[in-house]
Amino acid sequence: MKIEKESLIGRRVPKLDAPERVTGRAVYIQDLVLPRMLHAAILRTDRVHARILSIDTSRAERLPGVKAVLTAKDIENVPFGFGKDNTPLKGDRVRCIRDEIAAVAADSEETARDACGLIRVTYEDLPPILTPAEALRDGAPLIHEAKGTNVPFTYDYAQGDVAVGEGESDIVVEETYRLPFITHCCLGTSGIAASFDARGDLTLFSVTQVPFLYARDMAAIVGVAPERVRVIQVTIGGGFGSKLDIYPYEPIAVHLARKTGRPVKLVFDRHEEFVASPTRQPTEIRIRAGAKRDGTFTFRDIDFVHDNGGYTSWGATTPFVMMQSFSSLYRVPHVRMRGRVVYTNNPYSGSMRGYGNLQATFAVESAVDLLAGKLGLDPLEIRLRNAQEAGETTGQGMVFRTCGLRECLTTAATRSGWREKRRATETDRPHVRRGIGMASMLHVGGGAKIYRSDGCGTILTVDDFCRVTVLTGSSEIGQGSETVLAMIAAEELGLPLDAITVVNNDTRITPWDVGVHASRTTFIAGNSVRLAARKAREKLLFAASARLKVPAEELDIRRATIVRAADGEPLEELGKVIRGLHFAKRSEVVVTEHYYEPPSVMQDRAFKGDVSASYAFGTQVAEVEVDLGTGVVKVLRMTAVHDIGRVLNRLGAEGQVEGGLVMGLGYALCEELLVDGGRVLNPSFRDYKLMTAPEVPPFDVTFVETLDPEGPYGAKGIGEAPAICTAAAVANAVRHATGGRFTALPLTPERVHRETHGR
Amino acid sequence: MKIEKESLIGRRVPKLDAPERVTGRAVYIQDLVLPRMLHAAILRTDRVHARILSIDTSRAERLPGVKAVLTAKDIENVPFGFGKDNTPLKGDRVRCIRDEIAAVAADSEETARDACGLIRVTYEDLPPILTPAEALRDGAPLIHEAKGTNVPFTYDYAQGDVAVGEGESDIVVEETYRLPFITHCCLGTSGIAASFDARGDLTLFSVTQVPFLYARDMAAIVGVAPERVRVIQVTIGGGFGSKLDIYPYEPIAVHLARKTGRPVKLVFDRHEEFVASPTRQPTEIRIRAGAKRDGTFTFRDIDFVHDNGGYTSWGATTPFVMMQSFSSLYRVPHVRMRGRVVYTNNPYSGSMRGYGNLQATFAVESAVDLLAGKLGLDPLEIRLRNAQEAGETTGQGMVFRTCGLRECLTTAATRSGWREKRRATETDRPHVRRGIGMASMLHVGGGAKIYRSDGCGTILTVDDFCRVTVLTGSSEIGQGSETVLAMIAAEELGLPLDAITVVNNDTRITPWDVGVHASRTTFIAGNSVRLAARKAREKLLFAASARLKVPAEELDIRRATIVRAADGEPLEELGKVIRGLHFAKRSEVVVTEHYYEPPSVMQDRAFKGDVSASYAFGTQVAEVEVDLGTGVVKVLRMTAVHDIGRVLNRLGAEGQVEGGLVMGLGYALCEELLVDGGRVLNPSFRDYKLMTAPEVPPFDVTFVETLDPEGPYGAKGIGEAPAICTAAAVANAVRHATGGRFTALPLTPERVHRETHGR
Repeated sequence: MKIEKESLIGRRVPKLDAPERVTGRAVYIQDLVLPRMLHAAILRTDRVHARILSIDTSRAERLPGVKAVLTAKDIENVPFGFGKDNTPLKGDRVRCIRDEIAAVAADSEETARDACGLIRVTYEDLPPILTPAEALRDGAPLIHEAKGTNVPFTYDYAQGDVAVGEGESDIVVEETYRLPFITHCCLGTSGIAASFDARGDLTLFSVTQVPFLYARDMAAIVGVAPERVRVIQVTIGGGFGSKLDIYPYEPIAVHLARKTGRPVKLVFDRHEEFVASPTRQPTEIRIRAGAKRDGTFTFRDIDFVHDNGGYTSWGATTPFVMMQSFSSLYRVPHVRMRGRVVYTNNPYSGSMRGYGNLQATFAVESAVDLLAGKLGLDPLEIRLRNAQEAGETTGQGMVFRTCGLRECLTTAATRSGWREKRRATETDRPHVRRGIGMASMLHVGGGAKIYRSDGCGTILTVDDFCRVTVLTGSSEIGQGSETVLAMIAAEELGLPLDAITVVNNDTRITPWDVGVHASRTTFIAGNSVRLAARKAREKLLFAASARLKVPAEELDIRRATIVRAADGEPLEELGKVIRGLHFAKRSEVVVTEHYYEPPSVMQDRAFKGDVSASYAFGTQVAEVEVDLGTGVVKVLRMTAVHDIGRVLNRLGAEGQVEGGLVMGLGYALCEELLVDGGRVLNPSFRDYKLMTAPEVPPFDVTFVETLDPEGPYGAKGIGEAPAICTAAAVANAVRHATGGRFTALPLTPERVHRETHGR
Repeated sequence: MKIEKESLIGRRVPKLDAPERVTGRAVYIQDLVLPRMLHAAILRTDRVHARILSIDTSRAERLPGVKAVLTAKDIENVPFGFGKDNTPLKGDRVRCIRDEIAAVAADSEETARDACGLIRVTYEDLPPILTPAEALRDGAPLIHEAKGTNVPFTYDYAQGDVAVGEGESDIVVEETYRLPFITHCCLGTSGIAASFDARGDLTLFSVTQVPFLYARDMAAIVGVAPERVRVIQVTIGGGFGSKLDIYPYEPIAVHLARKTGRPVKLVFDRHEEFVASPTRQPTEIRIRAGAKRDGTFTFRDIDFVHDNGGYTSWGATTPFVMMQSFSSLYRVPHVRMRGRVVYTNNPYSGSMRGYGNLQATFAVESAVDLLAGKLGLDPLEIRLRNAQEAGETTGQGMVFRTCGLRECLTTAATRSGWREKRRATETDRPHVRRGIGMASMLHVGGGAKIYRSDGCGTILTVDDFCRVTVLTGSSEIGQGSETVLAMIAAEELGLPLDAITVVNNDTRITPWDVGVHASRTTFIAGNSVRLAARKAREKLLFAASARLKVPAEELDIRRATIVRAADGEPLEELGKVIRGLHFAKRSEVVVTEHYYEPPSVMQDRAFKGDVSASYAFGTQVAEVEVDLGTGVVKVLRMTAVHDIGRVLNRLGAEGQVEGGLVMGLGYALCEELLVDGGRVLNPSFRDYKLMTAPEVPPFDVTFVETLDPEGPYGAKGIGEAPAICTAAAVANAVRHATGGRFTALPLTPERVHRETHGR
């Protein structure tokens, strides 16, 4: 019985962790129970900006069941965060509504929360700064006096000479776009459990998406040597960038564990998740852009301001990513960008899927449609005229070894019926207009060399029964990496998928990785697994060759069987070869390792350089119907075409695109964290409007499979890509339908109605 | 500042896991909590031998909180155990008092136990067989009819020709020794938690000491593919061989987990631990032995019977080890051994530290003293005359590459003041006699090739902060292996001990190993770690050599620093070398692996062959005072001299010897599981007499450090050795003091009084 070569690559494979999740067996932080564990809660301030005059914890301390109450004076309150401007507990001043005043560890969560309610704090209010504009005013009070400024980070980037570009322009447009607060809405709320062992080593049961960096950074915050911190990730109920930073609740739990000598768990409720977890930064972007009469782009000049909130997170570095789209989304010779990150007394923002790119792409793609409109060009035509091709290097130094942008544009146009639908906006209902709009995106697809190493390690073992364990540094945060990595190991080793176990949640066991960010896991962890598995494959074929007296290069492994590669003739069970090694006189077991480092480089001081091993592209087309009477925008259909290189798990890739589209539609139409006077007005799913299943339109998802020369089997990253250009496409469609400007999101009925009725 | 070479080898290092254990942080099975976990209890029979007529579980099923009730008819009751004569639940017949009739999973342990109390079983009693003699009688009823015999295993071994040996003898002695039931008395009682994931993979939180074999064997019992079983060991509260077998409670927990779809934990209480955990097999050994007038041993002829109890465990293979002492403890040319393992309706026996060797050594060393007495030779002299030396191969084929037996004998004699104390037994109290006795032991010290591979795998990683993780297949069951393995890694890598984490408790993560038995861990896992660490060392020195332009062989690693080997001049921090590799363009991390297989061989069909890579020896001398009025034996002092090759952790080795001595003294003096009519009469620490701290005499512990050429740094195994000859030495001392025969243990006051008063 000949055995055909089988491959899972490109097929539709359900996520391996899905059954655990849907049957309730997965252990989220909510489910975790440790022996002797205490429960913690945090008292947050109810002021936006104030001096703390006194904190009285005496009643809380007397509550039965309370084991520890901490305030800033009880701990070494080490500054942390990207700007080193945050502390676990606030002792003298509060700067935003989520600020942590005190924390309690108790026998139960209820007791801990009750105890928080017994703590009395007196304040002297300070004048709040509620917008970046106020913060930037001359003489504005300083939110962090030690910084000497309300602008902790400024980014200036240039390529070419904008003045030259403007001189060459036949047309120039200018507009200012305002992007709102939104938040990640992870279905699993934030939480941690911290436990010291008797040697003083610290184990953190965490939801972080960057476990190795988290261990290192947390070590410094809580005063433990980095090699003494072990991070074990529980099942993570959504990350989307929100788990890139360390937040005050995490060192607080550690301090409580240290004080009580017991494991301490701290979990957010939904209200707390809305108030005290990060946001996508509100951004105001002024963009000027020019083009020649034929539509050739000449320059872009951008000035934007991020509302940083009261403290600085990794979100303050989103301008790095934004400048990639400003500089390189379409060919544009002259670019200048100035970005400022500004303190306010609003909730502080973080990193979120796309990492600034949704905001930047909204501005760029809105401006592209403005230019097209002024020039009387079809939005598709102006984009095609400026779309790069494979082999180009952008002004910022990104090398597009593969580039499916033009094919994404044409495919999206064809599949959406672009040319026909672009012609008319009338419907048979006089108050209803139709529109169609498009937008494209560019994002890193092969990691991003932010750190000196962007690599990932794998240790791979094959046991006597052909069971493979893949120890990978990478993390599963719901994105499906476990499944893709298992597929890669199965592919290399000719084994069924369920022979593979991926272990990816324990820094003491798995090799180094820099975490889930920059859409890097499939590309980088995938290559690492592929190359470790290939070493195992070579060892097995070598052993089989010796047993069978057939050259190794004439052998293959299929369905756990050594076969003749030429015709699939089965020669020996793989298990026998493995056991033959194990039970040989010079006994061996199959253990291999590989550390994969992508061939990318760090940017230079001018922010230039080929920062990723690969880049991903995509075009999305939105078809909308706008009810001018009610202002309601109904998205009729989204066409999404993405160049992600070779598709590995088609179901997973489609899932990523669909999830990204839903997130992008929420950004476009309904999501907004309403922050007024520094306070969150809608901290619940009743008042914070997520897209829900009945509202989701049909999606047409297509992949342009450029084969990346470096990616595993030709794959590129896809994690962030699908959310990036959705809102821009929807806004362009609404503009097409209505002729409105629409400079702000979300496109709520109220906003659409006002815009279309001139109010 | 020059850095001297430092070594932990041979120093006194506290156990790394001790702080966790003594501070209550260690997670024993009792402490383990899994989300959604149920608790189970077992209904055991109250009959010794009976037919089951009916089981009515209806009342138990109706008890609120009960989630599942299982009897034999509800499960596929797969036969298991070394004799495949046991089943998880008993449906038709019970054969000993611990037999499992039904099991309950419920919300709490109390409810589960209450439900067991509501189950009604009706029986038809069968005539019990309560001694091997009854079982061996012609026409005795068969306990396992399917076996067709009450003697499931018989061992016949011979070397030389006993008739020739007898012919050459000037003196022949014969005696029959009776060794009692004792049990392990692990302070952590038995338990398990079983959990299926949504894919049907089974995780067992287990106290097994042989996790890889356990996974494979459990798979067959519960009908799961072996590659789908993952074993995670919780902290184990003592093993001593009791965790070598699978017992019915373990598959029962799995069946309950399957039926309820929830994790199920089952933990023994102390009563259950006494009644339903294994015993050291009671053995009756007839030994005939001869010698020439000068004391040269001529032959041994042994016939022994093991009381197997109702079912067969690995304990039925203890004759393999017993025959090693019969054949090779001292030089003896002609040996014949017949051993029979016999079913009875008593509690069934298992494996226990020493694995039959305590019983065999008791017989051999008692007979040696008998011969010495008959020949008028000093017991030391007759032993020295027959003690082997390094380089000898025994009649059974064991090659003594190193052998410190003679030095053990002479050192023990010197340190105990043997010659002087042997002269007189009188004291200043007329009813009190003093005595001194000795006994030696032989045991495998470099593993035992019972399986085709006796190897152990290691994966070793070094992180950017010089933190080392050692993934070893071996298990820590309290014997201190974690500490020794960490010391070895620290030694090779020039790092402090607390830079090392040993991960040794998860079959999905660690490489293969055959478990804790045969005193193999230091030797085999130690070599595996040593060689994996050496590879890492070589990689690091190679990298340092490239950085420093100094040949690698001129470099060393000391205190996490690269130094010039010749003079200890510090050249670079090790961490910098590691990070240099990590952040190099061709990035690497330090991950190595090694699978160590000892150069031993499996025995042939005649039980001959060099089954271990090394052998350990020892001599113990007991000094006693016997009160003839009360029969009380007081041990005044134990002198223990053991050849365990190079001592790695002196504190750990001493701890092993002291623990073994205490266990051996209990066997000699007070421990006995009183089984009467098949029932256990003393299932509590009130009635089962362990040695307690105030009764423990002074110990004088010395090591003879023969340097084994294969062992790590010259080490040999020590786990079982110290318990083996203690009872024999004590009995020889009591015989010396009193002149009695003392053919049975324990030497309780009653027994001593009867013997010394002729009753």
